[in-house]
Amino acid sequence: MKFVNLDHISSNPILPEVKQAMIEAIGKDYANPSSQHTPGEQAAEALERARESVARLINCELPKEVVFTSCGTESINHAIKGVALANQKKGRHIVTSNIEHNAVIRSIRRLKSMGFTVTSLSVDSYGRINPREVADAIKEDTVLVSIMHSNNETGTIQPIEEIGEIAREKKIVFHCDAVDSVGIVPIDVNKLGVDLMSFAANTFYGPTGVGGLYIRRGTQVWPLLDGGIQENNKRAGTENLIGIIGAGVAADIAVRDLESRSKTLGRLKQKMIDELPGYIDEYIINTHSDYSLPNLISISIKYIEGESVVLMLDDEGLAVSTRSACATGSLRASHVLLSIGRSHADAQGTLVVSFGPENTEADVTTFLTALKNVVTTLRNISPLYKKMSQG
Amino acid sequence: MKFVNLDHISSNPILPEVKQAMIEAIGKDYANPSSQHTPGEQAAEALERARESVARLINCELPKEVVFTSCGTESINHAIKGVALANQKKGRHIVTSNIEHNAVIRSIRRLKSMGFTVTSLSVDSYGRINPREVADAIKEDTVLVSIMHSNNETGTIQPIEEIGEIAREKKIVFHCDAVDSVGIVPIDVNKLGVDLMSFAANTFYGPTGVGGLYIRRGTQVWPLLDGGIQENNKRAGTENLIGIIGAGVAADIAVRDLESRSKTLGRLKQKMIDELPGYIDEYIINTHSDYSLPNLISISIKYIEGESVVLMLDDEGLAVSTRSACATGSLRASHVLLSIGRSHADAQGTLVVSFGPENTEADVTTFLTALKNVVTTLRNISPLYKKMSQG
Repeated sequence: MKFVNLDHISSNPILPEVKQAMIEAIGKDYANPSSQHTPGEQAAEALERARESVARLINCELPKEVVFTSCGTESINHAIKGVALANQKKGRHIVTSNIEHNAVIRSIRRLKSMGFTVTSLSVDSYGRINPREVADAIKEDTVLVSIMHSNNETGTIQPIEEIGEIAREKKIVFHCDAVDSVGIVPIDVNKLGVDLMSFAANTFYGPTGVGGLYIRRGTQVWPLLDGGIQENNKRAGTENLIGIIGAGVAADIAVRDLESRSKTLGRLKQKMIDELPGYIDEYIINTHSDYSLPNLISISIKYIEGESVVLMLDDEGLAVSTRSACATGSLRASHVLLSIGRSHADAQGTLVVSFGPENTEADVTTFLTALKNVVTTLRNISPLYKKMSQG
Repeated sequence: MKFVNLDHISSNPILPEVKQAMIEAIGKDYANPSSQHTPGEQAAEALERARESVARLINCELPKEVVFTSCGTESINHAIKGVALANQKKGRHIVTSNIEHNAVIRSIRRLKSMGFTVTSLSVDSYGRINPREVADAIKEDTVLVSIMHSNNETGTIQPIEEIGEIAREKKIVFHCDAVDSVGIVPIDVNKLGVDLMSFAANTFYGPTGVGGLYIRRGTQVWPLLDGGIQENNKRAGTENLIGIIGAGVAADIAVRDLESRSKTLGRLKQKMIDELPGYIDEYIINTHSDYSLPNLISISIKYIEGESVVLMLDDEGLAVSTRSACATGSLRASHVLLSIGRSHADAQGTLVVSFGPENTEADVTTFLTALKNVVTTLRNISPLYKKMSQG
């Protein structure tokens, strides 16, 4: 069955040009970029070309400030644990928010088990952090602020620029998890005022297995991977050159297409928001109407279980998700949805629909039609819905 | 220029069948293996098939004991830091050797900066550890023994089985860095008695960007990457599925071809050892004659600089190395060669020649002929050699 993919937040397709570049790289049998012979130098050149492309995408003038990692999660672990451990003599307090990705939450939890303390900020009912609360949370012994750019479950975008200003003013290292933003919305590390920023190539239609970590020059951070002298001594280990070459090409295309990409995705999202009331009732849109990713919409549908919807839509050839793929298997309600005030029941009835480059307006209609049937079927067997509709 | 690659220890070519499998995987646009819809399940199945193949290669009956990482270095960092930090309440002492890879040395150095203590064992003039010294080094507060299987600069293989027995007897967790062994010589995690073992797909002609970490069930180890529930909760982060699929196919082929592969490589190595005296004099072979990898030979050539030889052979279209690619850029003499008793001068005059599947007997002759010319040229301009040859 040909699937309609509306779960791009879990995995994006790779662009045709990127596939071609990766296939060519596979054919080339690149040497080790650290080797001193000519084949090694050719590999090193390919690596640095990709680094320049990725640096351009985030408006970083010094490509050396970009470290290639194996995924967004590695970038986040590297940034958070690396800054905290390198600066622990200065202090052991971290400021973060309640809606971060598990990679952030669990990296910080690991540090807590090592004696660090944490202030985790709540968000408003639209899922946004108040920058003033960041300022208030910073203490004498704060060594790191880590706030995400966009949320992977709701798509809501945070006021990073304002937080960056506060961090700069207070001279606190600022890490931003921008894994779901880079390549989808314009990102400029200088404008945002971040010292470290995590991102992943698959978000901008490169392969999985390649992450990036921007580290502003002069930032004190321990490597997560100790060993060889790769990545300017910031990340040891032989590089995934095939994937990195793909990431470079994907970054070039993202620079070129970002504006039109954002518009096209945003049109699909808007169509869905506009037409949704014609198909189902009793739902809440969790995505911020002004500050959010153009490719994602989160809907809490009352009196149903999101997991059942995912499975029933799957039978119809439609892929959507209920939450972060990284949280699959957890039976608990999403911490993000609880944080923005959803009830446990509404959180469990949530669908995340995320668009990608191959989606069309017809996909939206196909989805809405199928969703209406599924929701009707599920509500018909819901005792709660029966009780409610009988008044 | 078509290069003759005699630097396989830095990077191996990818087998044609592996390339084909990776290109097919690129075409498939796999979903996220953690997603709950059908495309996600298909991705998860591909991931688990690869895990079973890799588990078979190291004779591990429970594929769940194999964790996919991004490289050998990540596996090593995960094993060493993960075991040390997870067990620090029991003790903070580590036993290792003087000839380990930088990923081991620097992971342990990182732990030292956090308060751990280390006993680093010396090796004999053939580069081997005496298992009895491991037994003697284990103290009340020892929580980890980490000894490599084969050395990446000399090819010498350690008595891992004996060390494994000692570790088991003393109930100390035993990690083995087998990055340069798995896929080249038979490796059986049960026979070796290891609790953790690091390896990398490129060693068995899979892609770079994929490592493996064997973790015996029940071993206490912290993840290096905290976050999602991937890899049975042992390593967070979206998987490099294209690379992992390639690694799985490479492992299948390694299981099938290991014996013949080892013989073919060993014949090239033996031919070189046998014919070397007909081309140059005044050299020392650092590779153990009985216990060593079949694909690698290390030669310290007197009165020359290894780096000059590498550059001059490069001009002739021959790729060799002086040491680990991970140590490129370091001006210091190799710690491995100093440990086996080479002088600084001899260490600096060392070449590592490593064979791969595409090498032929003619490559050995080409290399020896070029080496003779290069060594003659370099010695002719060496004041030290002049003095020596004049008596």
